[in-house]
Amino acid sequence: MSKAFQDYYSPNHSVCFGCGDHNRLGLRIKSVWEGDAAVCRFTPKPEHTAFPGVVYGGLIASLIDCHSIATAIAAAYRAENRDMDTMPPIMCVTGNLNVSFLKPTPMDTELILKAEVKEMTPKKMIVRCSVFAGNEETAKGEVIAIRMPTNFNLPK
Amino acid sequence: MSKAFQDYYSPNHSVCFGCGDHNRLGLRIKSVWEGDAAVCRFTPKPEHTAFPGVVYGGLIASLIDCHSIATAIAAAYRAENRDMDTMPPIMCVTGNLNVSFLKPTPMDTELILKAEVKEMTPKKMIVRCSVFAGNEETAKGEVIAIRMPTNFNLPK
Repeated sequence: MSKAFQDYYSPNHSVCFGCGDHNRLGLRIKSVWEGDAAVCRFTPKPEHTAFPGVVYGGLIASLIDCHSIATAIAAAYRAENRDMDTMPPIMCVTGNLNVSFLKPTPMDTELILKAEVKEMTPKKMIVRCSVFAGNEETAKGEVIAIRMPTNFNLPK
Repeated sequence: MSKAFQDYYSPNHSVCFGCGDHNRLGLRIKSVWEGDAAVCRFTPKPEHTAFPGVVYGGLIASLIDCHSIATAIAAAYRAENRDMDTMPPIMCVTGNLNVSFLKPTPMDTELILKAEVKEMTPKKMIVRCSVFAGNEETAKGEVIAIRMPTNFNLPK
């Protein structure tokens, strides 16, 4: 089985609530390429409710954010025709997150997120991401991913 | 001490991960009026990290979403000049959530969210919300709150 994008993130910094392997209480999402789209599958936990039977919008926003940033990073490596474990590391942060909720997202269903990079410059990428419950698109988002300089130092 | 907007939500439906009193694992945010702005104070938990020392963007999006919807609901009661425990109940859902991350939001700091309704029609409200860590505005958002008809039935 191929490694997910998140499996290449620096272990020291893998504390992200959405995708960090070292965040025991987090969502630990995983993203992989399926052709030109990046796909993430996530089954909400019972506590991830908005109303009874409906998935919490904040969870959907979190999934779109983390999956889209992972997609931007993976796409940037692809554009440079190199693997994600090569140097220098590519790192992005979210500049803007825009989510439209199209219809209620049902609980008890695996969600499938499909993301594609729509625009790429040296400094930023625009990623579009749709959330499907079964065959129904229930939410869609757009993320502006800001590429960090390679000498960027994390706070603390 | 005055009740928070969320304290008026129907107990049967208070399962929202962001603001439901009956969601034991949720964020349980509380929103109150301070003049024309609605204010929510929230201290991130240690697991709410993006990078070491930086608050997770998905948490910020979740806080903006829930606090803005609560503000829309409270403002709608205010506009009808009636208390939040009067009938018929007013209910809103999120149509769109747009969050701009202005700078890293530091951990170990109480966050203060300030929201105001910028536009109100019978069917929707536009709410703007800023997130402050100390005196620094670190994120801002806009939420389109869709007002549900009073005969709206929740799924399940």
